[in-house]
Amino acid sequence: MKFKAIKGARDFYPPDMEVRNAIFDAWREVSLRNGFVEYDGPTLEYLDLYTAKSGDEIVQQLFHLTDRGGRELALRPEMTPTLARMVNAQVATLPKPIKWFCIPRCYRAERPQRGRLREFFQWNIDIVGLDDPLADAETIFVAVDLFRWFGLSPRQVVMKINSRELVAHMLLDLGVDATRLPPLYAVLDKRDKMPRAAFDAALAEILPDESVRRAMNEHLALPTLADVRSARTWAPATHDAIVEVQKVLDWLDRWGVGEYCTFDLGVVRGLAYYTGIVFEAYSKGGLKRSVCGGGRYDELLRVLGGPEIPAVGFASSDVVMQDLLDEFNLLPGRGGQRLDAYVIDADPSLFEQLISIVGALREKGVRADFSYRRLPLGKQLKAASNAGCAAAILLGQETRDRDVVTIKDLATGQQREVPRERLLAEPVSNLPRGGPA
Amino acid sequence: MKFKAIKGARDFYPPDMEVRNAIFDAWREVSLRNGFVEYDGPTLEYLDLYTAKSGDEIVQQLFHLTDRGGRELALRPEMTPTLARMVNAQVATLPKPIKWFCIPRCYRAERPQRGRLREFFQWNIDIVGLDDPLADAETIFVAVDLFRWFGLSPRQVVMKINSRELVAHMLLDLGVDATRLPPLYAVLDKRDKMPRAAFDAALAEILPDESVRRAMNEHLALPTLADVRSARTWAPATHDAIVEVQKVLDWLDRWGVGEYCTFDLGVVRGLAYYTGIVFEAYSKGGLKRSVCGGGRYDELLRVLGGPEIPAVGFASSDVVMQDLLDEFNLLPGRGGQRLDAYVIDADPSLFEQLISIVGALREKGVRADFSYRRLPLGKQLKAASNAGCAAAILLGQETRDRDVVTIKDLATGQQREVPRERLLAEPVSNLPRGGPA
Repeated sequence: MKFKAIKGARDFYPPDMEVRNAIFDAWREVSLRNGFVEYDGPTLEYLDLYTAKSGDEIVQQLFHLTDRGGRELALRPEMTPTLARMVNAQVATLPKPIKWFCIPRCYRAERPQRGRLREFFQWNIDIVGLDDPLADAETIFVAVDLFRWFGLSPRQVVMKINSRELVAHMLLDLGVDATRLPPLYAVLDKRDKMPRAAFDAALAEILPDESVRRAMNEHLALPTLADVRSARTWAPATHDAIVEVQKVLDWLDRWGVGEYCTFDLGVVRGLAYYTGIVFEAYSKGGLKRSVCGGGRYDELLRVLGGPEIPAVGFASSDVVMQDLLDEFNLLPGRGGQRLDAYVIDADPSLFEQLISIVGALREKGVRADFSYRRLPLGKQLKAASNAGCAAAILLGQETRDRDVVTIKDLATGQQREVPRERLLAEPVSNLPRGGPA
Repeated sequence: MKFKAIKGARDFYPPDMEVRNAIFDAWREVSLRNGFVEYDGPTLEYLDLYTAKSGDEIVQQLFHLTDRGGRELALRPEMTPTLARMVNAQVATLPKPIKWFCIPRCYRAERPQRGRLREFFQWNIDIVGLDDPLADAETIFVAVDLFRWFGLSPRQVVMKINSRELVAHMLLDLGVDATRLPPLYAVLDKRDKMPRAAFDAALAEILPDESVRRAMNEHLALPTLADVRSARTWAPATHDAIVEVQKVLDWLDRWGVGEYCTFDLGVVRGLAYYTGIVFEAYSKGGLKRSVCGGGRYDELLRVLGGPEIPAVGFASSDVVMQDLLDEFNLLPGRGGQRLDAYVIDADPSLFEQLISIVGALREKGVRADFSYRRLPLGKQLKAASNAGCAAAILLGQETRDRDVVTIKDLATGQQREVPRERLLAEPVSNLPRGGPA
């Protein structure tokens, strides 16, 4: 009887776990240095939390089940509904703006494919309660700050920024009916993933009037915000939307990450609930998919039972992040689980003393290990090197009689004697730093 | 429309998350300093992985569901089956002994009660591939090392140690039939949770012979290993088991944690698969339940499709750990998400410069934030204190003209001017450490 992992889920052996932990550490520290605090919710939520947000179609993309009390539950496919539920539950007392992040494990019941698994981790960044382009800009800044953390340059990644409100008002000005906007967003969002003919056919179904379609295609192809501004005489609401996007871009320059950011009318995001700025980051390498995306969603908390409260945020997944870093040879280095010291006995009669010393070192915070088998000194030293330790602590008959131990720096090979009690009292200052890389 | 969290699951608002992260950090660092490395598996596994280990009765305690391909999946109720599956898949190449830990979220479909929720986190420690009392002792040592990390003394917690093998051979020597052992373990494990009469009745059903029952009750009440040894003439296998328990206790003395540990014939653990040493830690305070438990399980990897390979491990949950720490006022302190610096402008015209400085500080790893509203200096300073910052960085018209900023240590109230470029080049050495606690 052989057991396997389910398809679309991953086993994280220790080397995989080191990469995952390094990505989580980056997510966590970049969030904290930008003034966000961490929260989490349950993995299982009532199913109607998701259908209330996304409609009944979402059910087939969810892992869902009925509990013993007959209630329909689902494994969270994303974090935003939980965020909305938690904020709404304490909306009167939470100080605003709420700057929260989390790293939930999420689930999708779909067929696994490259970059999309059935179990994955997401990084979520949200600012709730601040209706200001500065909040949009800061959210985008955090995503770019992560790229900088990993050493990704503006030659490797690009943050494309647009506004749903701008697109909406442009299209209204060009004669598109307001009821056509939501299906248009869904089709525009898929443009790069569809053959040209299929895209044109889908458009024609939503916008039967060819002159409107042509005007739309022409104007949505404008490359810069200045081009949009001067393309024609827009209504005041359209002009306001242009000014708002410009503010976001200006703040991003101020934050020092303007080089990573570009205006792009092609980014509309597929989901219905975005109300303002939307953005997506892309690799400039071979990886063609979006590595992070988000936007402003000022209606969602109300839809999910709360008051009207503005919000902006984004999500990214560990799967695409790992693909992105891998593409540019920037996967975080191993070694986060490395030992500090390996304790070695020259002779089996010293083993009981070895165990006492290991126990005392560990209590003092030293990552210490030893060989379970009584091996010759040379083999134990080899095990210490293999484990990546910075130091070996050698116990010999002769040094025991003088109450000293020998500390060998495994990077330089240098040895020196240290009184045993001094090592145990202050291990950190008596051991070499770091391991042989 | 109001949404709630499901029963038996928890919302972790940022203050709750700080406690959870502090417990995880402790689990992680104690594991690493004892030479364990982290792994993880999927949350969803095939259902038969659990029924193969625990029988069909387990199904009603699981959240399970059928995926679109018609396969029966379950949310993991524990980690050991996944550990066995993963080790078995790479058993030929993984260096032994395998010292692994993990912190999985686990799920139980049972009615929530104090200390037992439907979603919880577990800390798992396992040593696979080492059939030596030293491995049992080291596993127990790690659990006690966590108690020491949190400042729990031997007056507050006790680690009770026994051996399934010892109990088995004692009972065989006393005339109990081997087929009666598994049901006996299940009843003995529940002794403290049952009324005396119910316990006696359950025993009488398994062991109809009253003289055998009396002999069992008498011998299982022996308080020390020395009492067991001298109670009667035992068979050689029983004697060997006594020697093995003694070895484990001796090693724990050597590790320096003998004070926490005691032999206790009453600990048998309910699960069928333990084969040797078993142990449970208890609070000595009002909390009457086990806070961690484990033992040797030398058969399980074979049962789950692998070769015969010895293993020992334990698990503990974040729920009981939090109850335990709470009981002794040792819940880890808040502050892990504290900001380093709060940047303040004396006048709104400086706000754009403020944003540039915040961006540059964050890039250098400083946890920096600011007020979104342009408030008077005093209110911004108050916000800095409320956020627990160590430092405020003050920008004024006059200091801007001289390219300096004023750094105020919020713990001492002291202020000094620093050239702006020097602060941005080396922020860490120019900012005070820690925050006002």
